[in-house]
Amino acid sequence: MNQAKGRRGGREARRAQRERPKTAVLPAISRQLPVLDVLGEEGLEIIEANAETVLAETGIDFRDDDEVLELWRQAGAEVSGERVRLPRGLARKLLETAPGEFTQHARNPERSVPIGGRNIVFAPVYGPPFVRDLEGGRRYATLRDFENLVKLAYLAPAMHHSGGVLCEPVDVPVPERHLDMLAAHIRLSDKPFMGAVTAPERAADSIAMAELVFGADFVADHTVLISIINANSPLVYDATMLGALKTYARANQATIVSPFILSGAMSPVTVAGTLTLILAEALAGMALTQLLRPGAPVVFGAFASSISMQSGAPTFGTPEPTLVLLGAAQLARRLGIPFRSGGSLSAAKIADAQAAYESAQTLLPTLLAGCNFVLHAAGWLEGGLCAGYEKFVLDADQLGMMQVLAGGVDLSADSQAMAAITEVGPGNHFLGVSHTQAHFETAFYRSALADNNSVEQWQDEGSLDAVQRAHQNWQHQLADYQPPALDPAIDEAIADFVTRRKTQLSDT
Amino acid sequence: MNQAKGRRGGREARRAQRERPKTAVLPAISRQLPVLDVLGEEGLEIIEANAETVLAETGIDFRDDDEVLELWRQAGAEVSGERVRLPRGLARKLLETAPGEFTQHARNPERSVPIGGRNIVFAPVYGPPFVRDLEGGRRYATLRDFENLVKLAYLAPAMHHSGGVLCEPVDVPVPERHLDMLAAHIRLSDKPFMGAVTAPERAADSIAMAELVFGADFVADHTVLISIINANSPLVYDATMLGALKTYARANQATIVSPFILSGAMSPVTVAGTLTLILAEALAGMALTQLLRPGAPVVFGAFASSISMQSGAPTFGTPEPTLVLLGAAQLARRLGIPFRSGGSLSAAKIADAQAAYESAQTLLPTLLAGCNFVLHAAGWLEGGLCAGYEKFVLDADQLGMMQVLAGGVDLSADSQAMAAITEVGPGNHFLGVSHTQAHFETAFYRSALADNNSVEQWQDEGSLDAVQRAHQNWQHQLADYQPPALDPAIDEAIADFVTRRKTQLSDT
Repeated sequence: MNQAKGRRGGREARRAQRERPKTAVLPAISRQLPVLDVLGEEGLEIIEANAETVLAETGIDFRDDDEVLELWRQAGAEVSGERVRLPRGLARKLLETAPGEFTQHARNPERSVPIGGRNIVFAPVYGPPFVRDLEGGRRYATLRDFENLVKLAYLAPAMHHSGGVLCEPVDVPVPERHLDMLAAHIRLSDKPFMGAVTAPERAADSIAMAELVFGADFVADHTVLISIINANSPLVYDATMLGALKTYARANQATIVSPFILSGAMSPVTVAGTLTLILAEALAGMALTQLLRPGAPVVFGAFASSISMQSGAPTFGTPEPTLVLLGAAQLARRLGIPFRSGGSLSAAKIADAQAAYESAQTLLPTLLAGCNFVLHAAGWLEGGLCAGYEKFVLDADQLGMMQVLAGGVDLSADSQAMAAITEVGPGNHFLGVSHTQAHFETAFYRSALADNNSVEQWQDEGSLDAVQRAHQNWQHQLADYQPPALDPAIDEAIADFVTRRKTQLSDT
Repeated sequence: MNQAKGRRGGREARRAQRERPKTAVLPAISRQLPVLDVLGEEGLEIIEANAETVLAETGIDFRDDDEVLELWRQAGAEVSGERVRLPRGLARKLLETAPGEFTQHARNPERSVPIGGRNIVFAPVYGPPFVRDLEGGRRYATLRDFENLVKLAYLAPAMHHSGGVLCEPVDVPVPERHLDMLAAHIRLSDKPFMGAVTAPERAADSIAMAELVFGADFVADHTVLISIINANSPLVYDATMLGALKTYARANQATIVSPFILSGAMSPVTVAGTLTLILAEALAGMALTQLLRPGAPVVFGAFASSISMQSGAPTFGTPEPTLVLLGAAQLARRLGIPFRSGGSLSAAKIADAQAAYESAQTLLPTLLAGCNFVLHAAGWLEGGLCAGYEKFVLDADQLGMMQVLAGGVDLSADSQAMAAITEVGPGNHFLGVSHTQAHFETAFYRSALADNNSVEQWQDEGSLDAVQRAHQNWQHQLADYQPPALDPAIDEAIADFVTRRKTQLSDT
């Protein structure tokens, strides 16, 4: 806890921190573009009816959790062993208490995010045990990597969320990792963050640390954590995930209930069959949150990929998962529940053309699906096994473009620019006219990574490809990084908590 | 004309050619996905009214062509010098005779393409004087490069069109180039192709060569050529383009009337202002085709890019041109006229992540805009200055994915896969079930270029990036290339025509 020591305390420190320059930041996207629907009314009804049939006839397993089975029994489900069969309409009925939109609070109120409705929140890569950068190559991730990625997420204007496990810090023992990760989110960023899900007590730690930041009273009736609960597709929820789900839902903290599906392995090879399974699993998992605490914020998640039928490897950015993504978003919208999916997904090993095609072919559909919470929005490589530093900043640049695109067309009189067109007339150019000059600075998205120069200029500057430019970019960003202000009392409380819990954990 | 000599003649040759294996080919896309509209009714009306105001008050120049000015005068326009002012509604009224959909015939009828309606036709890169490949680097394009790219376009299943100037064969004198290019399209491919536009006599040569292929009678009442006519934005049509436009329209051959706009230079910096200018220019240019020959097939083109306000360089795959593209498609749809835009555009110098992000961020919006004719669908680098071999095959792979995506969701009972879901049940996998086995081969798009393997396998195979894999891919394709069958009489007639015209041209 070096960072917590040797720091100036009290008012002086707070003033100094307030005076630090603020990082550019964009609010969550308020989508102005229409959504792209791939299912008509009839198609939606078919999938919905089929999902109800799956829940009513095949049923779904809730494993190693008698409490959950008892809740289902009381709610009117037919429970046989660990198999739960939900009468048609039960899950949908239970979900009537789930909010259509909620706010996840950040410790900096300006960075709190609305989740649901027309809002879109971008969050970074989640889960990879490996990292890669151009200089260091591919290696196991460390806490230092984790902190670096949190910093890069903090510095990215269109990254609205600090995320969760940006990479697995494998140099920290598994039982303690969540403590260091949460401390890093709290200290190095002021954006909202995610809770631990790998054990119920880690979920409890997440809530306890959030209470130190926000105050226990605030946490009692505000959502300050969002956490990802994966189904074990097909049609299984396991004890670990149920433990985390119960802890968060009861504390009124948000859960993202996500079927995680490789079509052809965990679901049928077809889009319609995969959508049916996703809806069945999501309905059951989300309904459970409402049994635990009616009104608890919950998000309909869907993570779908195809598998290569040659090798069994997952594929990304291909058309079939895109159709699943767009269809699942429609199903969530019909339920009136926020939706999570997508990101900048790729099976590529490095940030090459494959990585970029696949990521763009996931990210733009994600936006057009109206996804409310976009995990893995930057940094994904190798189907999620590896977080790439260069990939992270390249993706983050794309997020900035998506935010502009989502804003749609400005039709104000000034934007119509009729006076400029009249002024210029045929055969002249618009560069010098006052309308162009007035909008010069902000008219077009400016990428820090794209090279738009002539080939001669590009060669003069070393013929750098996108990855090489991205490498320079993230290094400069980390060199210039300044942490956001944090009340030293909170900082100290977090440090104490982490130390105390680590001691407890190593004693057991 | 080596190719035409030493060839077996007559029936035997035709039989041999018929027996050659057919290349995989997909028909033009019949789009099942909905279009993505970025303008509401009110927005469309604003842009339409503004465009009429521009045409009526500012007017548009038709330069160095008295015949065209006289046509406009007779049609009721106010002509003052070269400035033509169109009374409100005149262009729209004239366009009532333009077809909403037409067929461009290919010499192989299976490869004829419908242009308009829900159809989408992909055509390759057009215009670059340079080519690049991984081994040979960047260099001036030659006829050999041109022929190679025609072959790659022929071999790409989702490339529906052979295009026009896939690159400028700069080793052939300018006045003769179009002859060699057209001969290559006719011989090396059986997909439809484009006509020359750089001079009216070259347009006439294009028609003459098409008559040798299709027969003069057929060409007289069928469209066998489509050609690109760029406006000199803002608000100018020059004599060269008018000459080609007149030649083609009178011969009932299709023209794509395309404002070519870098926002901020040739149009206002705003999306709304740019759309207004595009619509005004397209309306005037397209209406002229109907003055020349009512019913002549014409396509509403829009090529829009932003300029970097730092350097003046064009940028691609950025959000503002995407909004222009989507909005222009709506304006064309309201006119009931086929639309051309988009492609796989990029300012990148090589097929790196920048190239791929930018291309995907143009191509997917192109699809969702419902573009009917997509020029530059593969091969673009450097804002169109350079055609990349690796970029070509990487883009062509993406076109295959777009074709699947555009097909939408199959909701047949078989695709619903309810029996498979019941059969598998909770906690098992779908790999072995009969439904999966039955769809094994065709369930998912298979990319020949994406590497979905583990990092270990990828390393074992040489850690090749996407460009290196693409390099191998196009070399194999060219090595295996077999030309499509062609009647030797046609082949000979084309050879004779080219020889005769070259002699004439070198005599003058």
